[in-house]
Amino acid sequence: MMNNDLNDFISLSEKFESRFSTSHFPPQPKNLYDAAGHLLTLKGKRVRPVLCLMANELFGPISEDAYYAANAIELFHNFTLVHDDIMDRAPIRRGQPTVHEMYGSSTAILAGDVMLVQAYEYLNKINISFLSRVLSLFNDTARKVCEGQQLDMEFESQEKVSLYDYVEMIGLKTSVLLAASLQMGSLLGGAGQGNQEYLYDFGKNLGIAFQVQDDYLDAFGDPAKFGKQTGGDILSNKKTFLLLRAKEVADSEQIEKLEALLSVNDASKIQPILEMYKSCGVDEWARELKNEYLKRALTALGEVAVLSKRKKPLEKLAHDLLDREQ
Amino acid sequence: MMNNDLNDFISLSEKFESRFSTSHFPPQPKNLYDAAGHLLTLKGKRVRPVLCLMANELFGPISEDAYYAANAIELFHNFTLVHDDIMDRAPIRRGQPTVHEMYGSSTAILAGDVMLVQAYEYLNKINISFLSRVLSLFNDTARKVCEGQQLDMEFESQEKVSLYDYVEMIGLKTSVLLAASLQMGSLLGGAGQGNQEYLYDFGKNLGIAFQVQDDYLDAFGDPAKFGKQTGGDILSNKKTFLLLRAKEVADSEQIEKLEALLSVNDASKIQPILEMYKSCGVDEWARELKNEYLKRALTALGEVAVLSKRKKPLEKLAHDLLDREQ
Repeated sequence: MMNNDLNDFISLSEKFESRFSTSHFPPQPKNLYDAAGHLLTLKGKRVRPVLCLMANELFGPISEDAYYAANAIELFHNFTLVHDDIMDRAPIRRGQPTVHEMYGSSTAILAGDVMLVQAYEYLNKINISFLSRVLSLFNDTARKVCEGQQLDMEFESQEKVSLYDYVEMIGLKTSVLLAASLQMGSLLGGAGQGNQEYLYDFGKNLGIAFQVQDDYLDAFGDPAKFGKQTGGDILSNKKTFLLLRAKEVADSEQIEKLEALLSVNDASKIQPILEMYKSCGVDEWARELKNEYLKRALTALGEVAVLSKRKKPLEKLAHDLLDREQ
Repeated sequence: MMNNDLNDFISLSEKFESRFSTSHFPPQPKNLYDAAGHLLTLKGKRVRPVLCLMANELFGPISEDAYYAANAIELFHNFTLVHDDIMDRAPIRRGQPTVHEMYGSSTAILAGDVMLVQAYEYLNKINISFLSRVLSLFNDTARKVCEGQQLDMEFESQEKVSLYDYVEMIGLKTSVLLAASLQMGSLLGGAGQGNQEYLYDFGKNLGIAFQVQDDYLDAFGDPAKFGKQTGGDILSNKKTFLLLRAKEVADSEQIEKLEALLSVNDASKIQPILEMYKSCGVDEWARELKNEYLKRALTALGEVAVLSKRKKPLEKLAHDLLDREQ
């Protein structure tokens, strides 16, 4: 295969979209399947399925199996969003009312369930020689994502959460699916165990770096470039990388002031908390932490035993995702 | 294999139980996996997994694969109970508080999700030569069960529900899982397509007969033998075989009286509605309908091409389940 045939993120995203934008469900019962299809038609970035396709293309032309896996991964991701939004009582997702807002919680629970089942049905179209390994990876990942969501909910009401625990949770809730998407794509491309694991590590570290950046930008980002209002995490006392780090490094006087600010319930606390973050060096720390995880991700990618020019699209994607703003 | 080795329901139920009563989940996060394990430890009758084992034994000694499938089926069934109980706001299940009562709705949603994933993990232990067919049957069944629950919820707020629609709904919500359990057991025993389909039909009709009986006994059963208070369906205006039939055959005067009784909100309506059912011949009709479905079930079982003495345990089970009270 010619190397210069390699697709970049945008072109693979379009290829995926054109195959994915079909009906994944029967027409009846209408409410159930309209609810299940709702999020799928609101186009997201499709990062996870495209990572699967990109990892697959590292090892040769993209296979039909990789497209089936990509479908399963995107359905799974959207299933978690539907159920998470119920748990978080979230009213809006991708600029639209959430599934439970539109169809009620009961139908939203069932819609999520059938989305998960349909993900398995796509996996079942994969060549039998890969099926068992793919299922194993998928099941393991699905379990971890549920564990991550559980920990996330528990942390919200927990007095003390360590940075270590937070990284664990983020790893489970968001990074393992990125990691598994890459691993699955490579597995279906015939990669050996070693290359699969390097790609898994690439995705895992990329995911954590991305979350660090997300937490950072919510506090220090330029709203015009970040795409949403900043300060939201601070306003809701969300346990982020920044807050947890501040609690770990602040002296007793700062802690006292921070606790007082956390008990304030309006936007007046945003500026003083930002200043406290700066005086604790949390902003600088977060930039370095993000770069540390990005470095780990790129090191893992570097170890994948294919010609380095084949890895350019994944390298570029990592930089595109993580060179925002800072 | 010697025919007199065949197990009856009780002995297979015990064999299944001894294998199933193990931990299906990792220990952490504790809340999540305690919630997922809660229902599983409250011993039910295990009808579905045992049907899988019985169908498997029709064709030879029970295989390891059949036990894995039985585990998956029981996990799936309990997953549906956990999610259904959230939707129905049910406080009690198997004499204990429901999962969402004990752990909250959010954890209960996630617990159901990991139970479904674990069901797939058991399927993934099945011999590769069966895996794809088993997944296909399982996914198809899971989808239908969700559809049945959706229709059940929609019927509750729907003015007019025909008996035909109700049979469709019951078929999806409860019978297809019984049917698929039998089919899966037979498939894993090496049965051909024809025998698999006869066993599916046996289970499908058995399930509907059982629901007719359940609706009948809730109205006309002897509470001591039925195991729960009668009249509950009438009190809650539940759309049952009896009510839907009464609405279809009552004359305009009876309809008027029935509507008036349905708007009463206490137990005083139970006796007059029972009398109305009798005056419309609904009791006799239900007994005949149950027998009709039982007959269809036994006819399908009769067609399964194995020695008829091998079918005795399934025949006996059908009679044991359906010769209660009437």
